[in-house]
Amino acid sequence: MNMIEPFTTMLDLAAGGLVPERKLVERTLGDMQGMYAAAVPAERLAEVVYRVSEIPAPLDEGNLLSSTTTIEPGTVDGEYHMTKGHFHAKIDRAEIYVTLAGEGRLVMATEAGEPAVEPMVRGSVNYVPGGWAHRSVNVGSGPLVFFAAFPADAGYDYKTIEDEGFPVLVVERDGAPQVVSNPRYGG
Amino acid sequence: MNMIEPFTTMLDLAAGGLVPERKLVERTLGDMQGMYAAAVPAERLAEVVYRVSEIPAPLDEGNLLSSTTTIEPGTVDGEYHMTKGHFHAKIDRAEIYVTLAGEGRLVMATEAGEPAVEPMVRGSVNYVPGGWAHRSVNVGSGPLVFFAAFPADAGYDYKTIEDEGFPVLVVERDGAPQVVSNPRYGG
Repeated sequence: MNMIEPFTTMLDLAAGGLVPERKLVERTLGDMQGMYAAAVPAERLAEVVYRVSEIPAPLDEGNLLSSTTTIEPGTVDGEYHMTKGHFHAKIDRAEIYVTLAGEGRLVMATEAGEPAVEPMVRGSVNYVPGGWAHRSVNVGSGPLVFFAAFPADAGYDYKTIEDEGFPVLVVERDGAPQVVSNPRYGG
Repeated sequence: MNMIEPFTTMLDLAAGGLVPERKLVERTLGDMQGMYAAAVPAERLAEVVYRVSEIPAPLDEGNLLSSTTTIEPGTVDGEYHMTKGHFHAKIDRAEIYVTLAGEGRLVMATEAGEPAVEPMVRGSVNYVPGGWAHRSVNVGSGPLVFFAAFPADAGYDYKTIEDEGFPVLVVERDGAPQVVSNPRYGG
């Protein structure tokens, strides 16, 4: 066992900020090219879609990673801003999401293509069981902010989603979010 | 892998309540007899010290348990109210605490007797690494409320702490919390 010392991080329970701020991932629309149904217009490639700030831990079994994610509001041709989404490389690893601000949808899918969509709102605790790919989608008018925790040995499989997408999309219809089938899924 | 469906629980980010409320553990001073340095007076045995409400999950590897704990304020002969405290039965399993209300101390110890004490205050995220027994202590004047997440296969070893205690105690001195050596530890 890799023994480390206990430590404390401060989490802003309204805006999600971490002090000290640790590793920061920033994804732009350029990084998300191919994830939306529509192509991203060239003039929007530098637009930041989401940021992840993580509390570090050893990546071996038994440890936990936790992070704050902030997704900016907006759409690409009516499809709401979202994270890339992934399976865990160790596919049986679960994840817990605690939403701190905003309004979202947690889109999930099994390898067999079963979809699930759960609401994200301040105080919602979403349980993503092992075996479910997960993507969070901001359907509100402000930032969607959530804190997540998962086993540190889970790892990431982004490629399956990059190649196949999710079976459902979350799109704006008459100003409200709607879950629709992904016409490209399983194609 | 034990596949389950995703689900959502609502967490009150101020008071810690869960909806739906799931399994509830309630510990009285009678249950805590022998954990405080002083004996619990007979007339206080029914007094509730803390309650735990848990979001259920399968207990196999890869899943996560999460729960809200509320510790009432008070002392037994100057020693602040606290949880029993435990090692995880799978001792390398970590735990994350997010404090929602109140003021506390997270008291930890390795099997070799190294102590650690971290602050608990609204927004603090305490990382309890594998190998560290952990007990939370309410040093404030109102309830101490925290949300915790940990691997579902961690299990509980309460007996080591029941037999040996922690190397340090948190006591009230001149109205303020102070960490002192436990005279009975290692005796």
